[in-house]
Amino acid sequence: MNRPTITAFQVSPDRGRGLARDMRVRWALEEVGQAYDVRLVSFEQMKQPAHLALHPFGQIPTYEEGDLALFESGSIVLHIAEQRAGLLLPADSNARARVITWMFAALNTVEPPLVELTAAKVFERDQPWYGQRLPLAFERARKPLGDLSRRLGDAQWLESDAFTAGDLMMIGVLFRAKGLGVVDEYPNLSAYVARGEARPAFKRAFDAQLAVFKHSSEGA
Amino acid sequence: MNRPTITAFQVSPDRGRGLARDMRVRWALEEVGQAYDVRLVSFEQMKQPAHLALHPFGQIPTYEEGDLALFESGSIVLHIAEQRAGLLLPADSNARARVITWMFAALNTVEPPLVELTAAKVFERDQPWYGQRLPLAFERARKPLGDLSRRLGDAQWLESDAFTAGDLMMIGVLFRAKGLGVVDEYPNLSAYVARGEARPAFKRAFDAQLAVFKHSSEGA
Repeated sequence: MNRPTITAFQVSPDRGRGLARDMRVRWALEEVGQAYDVRLVSFEQMKQPAHLALHPFGQIPTYEEGDLALFESGSIVLHIAEQRAGLLLPADSNARARVITWMFAALNTVEPPLVELTAAKVFERDQPWYGQRLPLAFERARKPLGDLSRRLGDAQWLESDAFTAGDLMMIGVLFRAKGLGVVDEYPNLSAYVARGEARPAFKRAFDAQLAVFKHSSEGA
Repeated sequence: MNRPTITAFQVSPDRGRGLARDMRVRWALEEVGQAYDVRLVSFEQMKQPAHLALHPFGQIPTYEEGDLALFESGSIVLHIAEQRAGLLLPADSNARARVITWMFAALNTVEPPLVELTAAKVFERDQPWYGQRLPLAFERARKPLGDLSRRLGDAQWLESDAFTAGDLMMIGVLFRAKGLGVVDEYPNLSAYVARGEARPAFKRAFDAQLAVFKHSSEGA
C-alpha cells in the first residue's frame, strides 16, 4: 500500500470538533496503522475543476493512493479495511458481509434523517414553520436510532466481540449527531459512542484534525 | 452460491411500479443470472421479532443464502456482485474500488435528499408551510443531481464502457425518483436511467415485482 493522501477542509466549519467526514477516514487509517498525508482545500478550491475531477460532488474527503483516487467516506473506509484483512474486516466471508451491511446501514438508514435534522436546525431556524417542523424531523431521526438501540442492547459492538469497520462507520455517524440531542435519548447508544471515542486510534485521528484547525486559526 | 431468498412487500405501496428497494436486488440477481426465491411479508410481519432478527430496522429487502443473512440493498447488491466477479464488478482492484465508490455515492449523496423531497411531498402536503418548504427540498435534491449530470456528460455509464454495480445502484436511486420531476431536469440523467431500464435484466426484475402486485390485488 502506497502512503495515501486525503483531503480535508483548510478551515473546518466545525472548528475542530471532528464533525467533518475526513474524521472517519483518519480514524480508519489510524486503526490499521497506516501513515498518511493530508492536503487541505479551501471552499473555493473545492469548486474548481482540479478538485471536481477527484470528487464530482465537490466535497471532502478524497483519497489518493498511487493510481487510485476515491471519494465517499464509506468507500474509502471499506478500501482501507480491505487492505488489512482481519483488523477492521473479519477474515470469514459471511462475517465480512455482515460488517459491510452495517456500514451501509450507518450511511443509508441512520445518517440521512440525522443530516435532515441538522439541515432543519441550520437552514430553517428563522422560518415561521420551524417550531412545527422540528418535531417531525426529530421523529424521523428517532426511528432508526430506536431500532439500532434495541438491536445493540448490552453488546459492546454491533456484530461480534470485536470492533469492526461497521462500528467505525456507525459511531462516526452517531458522533457527528451528538450535538443534536437525539442520540442522548438512548443511553446504550451514548455508551457505544463513548467506547469508540475511547479508542487510541480515534483519539489520534481527533487530535490530528484538531491540530489542523488550531493551526488555521492561528494563521488567520 | 446457494439459491438465495429475498423478502419483498406482500402488497407494495407503490402498486407495482418498481419503487420498493427489492427492485435493486432483483435486478442485480437477474444481471448475474442467479435464480432466487421471494418471501412476501406484510407490514404487520415486518414489525415482528422474526423479521426484526433479519432486519433490525424492520424494512425490506433482506437476503438469506445458506447461513448468511443480510439487509440493506447496497450491501446485498455488493455481495451479489462479488460472487460473480467480472459481471457487475471489474476484476481490476482499482476499477473495483471506483465502482464501489459510486455505490456509496448513490446511497449516501444522491439518494438522501431525494428521500427527503419524497417525504416532504407525502407528509407535509397539508401543512401550511408546504408551498414555501418544497422549493428548499427541491434545491437540496438538485445539487447532487447537477453534479452527477456534469460528471456523466455524454458517457454511457459512470466508470467505464461497461455497466457496473455502481450504475445499477445509481440508476436504481434515480429510477425511484422519476416521479418527483427533478431527475427530468437533466436530460443526460433521464437518458442514463432509460439505458438502465432497457436492459433485459431490469425488465425481468420489473416484471417479477409487478407480478407480485397483480397477484396480491387479484387475491384481495
